[in-house]
Amino acid sequence: MSADNSYIPPKVWQWNTSNGGNWASINRPISGPTHDNALPKGKHPFQLHSLATPNGVKVTIMLEELLALGFDEAEYDAFLIDISKGEQFASGFVDINPNSKIPALLDQSNEQPIRLFESGSILLHLAEKFNALIPKGEKRAECMSWLFWQMGSAPYLGGGFGHFYAYAPEKIEYCIDRFSMEVKRQLDVLDKHLANNEYICGDEYSIADVAIWPWYGALVLNRLYDAAEFLDAGSYKNLIRWANQLDQRPAIKRGVMVNKTWGDLSTQLHERHDASDFLKRTQDKLELEN
Amino acid sequence: MSADNSYIPPKVWQWNTSNGGNWASINRPISGPTHDNALPKGKHPFQLHSLATPNGVKVTIMLEELLALGFDEAEYDAFLIDISKGEQFASGFVDINPNSKIPALLDQSNEQPIRLFESGSILLHLAEKFNALIPKGEKRAECMSWLFWQMGSAPYLGGGFGHFYAYAPEKIEYCIDRFSMEVKRQLDVLDKHLANNEYICGDEYSIADVAIWPWYGALVLNRLYDAAEFLDAGSYKNLIRWANQLDQRPAIKRGVMVNKTWGDLSTQLHERHDASDFLKRTQDKLELEN
Repeated sequence: MSADNSYIPPKVWQWNTSNGGNWASINRPISGPTHDNALPKGKHPFQLHSLATPNGVKVTIMLEELLALGFDEAEYDAFLIDISKGEQFASGFVDINPNSKIPALLDQSNEQPIRLFESGSILLHLAEKFNALIPKGEKRAECMSWLFWQMGSAPYLGGGFGHFYAYAPEKIEYCIDRFSMEVKRQLDVLDKHLANNEYICGDEYSIADVAIWPWYGALVLNRLYDAAEFLDAGSYKNLIRWANQLDQRPAIKRGVMVNKTWGDLSTQLHERHDASDFLKRTQDKLELEN
Repeated sequence: MSADNSYIPPKVWQWNTSNGGNWASINRPISGPTHDNALPKGKHPFQLHSLATPNGVKVTIMLEELLALGFDEAEYDAFLIDISKGEQFASGFVDINPNSKIPALLDQSNEQPIRLFESGSILLHLAEKFNALIPKGEKRAECMSWLFWQMGSAPYLGGGFGHFYAYAPEKIEYCIDRFSMEVKRQLDVLDKHLANNEYICGDEYSIADVAIWPWYGALVLNRLYDAAEFLDAGSYKNLIRWANQLDQRPAIKRGVMVNKTWGDLSTQLHERHDASDFLKRTQDKLELEN
């Protein structure tokens, strides 16, 4: 840890725009729109404005799972929000999510369109609307506890560990230690739980799995922050079993591609408006590979 | 910010128990019980095991609000979990919450008792069980978005800002800056929203208010981290209006006392088993003052 003990916070915090690492340009101490811009609108019941971060793919996985179950009313248009360009500060986006974070969803299947923000809220809305991927009766409470667990825990993984391990302009030992310890504790919570449960809520795949996999599954499969070795992910054997099992689900394979703008070109589907968009990507992929 | 750029993380993180600030003794990279100990059990439908932190008082406020609405079936026993003594690692507590965090609730009003963890899950369970403090119809989605917003945002206030501003063994400028900026953004989100809404979900007091007030209300009323001046809380006038309005609610006045073991003695009610416990405290208070 740094031996520099000289910093004394001022009486009142001041915004210093010169510092903040890779994401400094999009972090602000104020909310609200920075510019006027309406959102595009498609014809499907659900209008998603998002990016393929872990919080974003929760929703595309969910919609793909619902479509795979035969719910045609879950059809959606997925539009891209490029957060590196500040598109989450456009007035149209802020109208749906005053918090300016992806994902944001407009449910226009109702007479009066419903705005939804926060991935957990979107998952719950969709599960209740289609009465799917959410246990009934007494198991519902267990599912909700794990869904909220994910929402309250992942900030320590993303905004804590991920930031200080991968993005911060300087490696600060105290911070990396603090958040590594917490993330390993969370991984151990899941690992012990999955020793006796096929899925997060027992024998039933649910929105708790859909919420947790994009963060903790991706982490142990080494798709997040390149940190699997650092966190000794291989030691969480039950978690890895579950992560691999879900990784084989076709809906998850599709969901992780939507609104993705990085990595191998064949894994990117910047916008999604129809199920055939994935087939086109498969063709693209074949063409790219040949 | 420190000029020490020399730290290079190891290939695999190692547990160093010698560092970590005020809460170092209860932070661990592993989960599960550290000792066998059954939880005490009272006679009421709800058995709460908690502490009067912001997450803890969400639940006691909720239960007091339900009782104030006339739901006698919301009667509860509140037992103390002293996290500084590691009581959250007792086997009985871990059986209810494998994540070892307060609050944890056992609903024994059902034939088969239901375990509940995560304050947001507990609020939702109680709201649905009593069909109270949760809007119906299309407003339900808005309420849920704000409830999940609180769960995903407050880690930046508690585990981020609060830790680095108040608890960490060293003041690290980069971290205080990072989390101050985010917390001020969150305060501004709430302030702008409350400019046009009496409560979080419009004209209806709901679990979204119950979830948000103990964190963001307490912060601007300078009851959290002594940080109101530092964050210029006075500038968030709509948020302060709302925070003061809720502060007058009798259920909130009672809820914040339950499982409280610090501050003025007259504000502490270590355990709560009956509505008359508050009256006894009022007598104690009078006696203390006279």
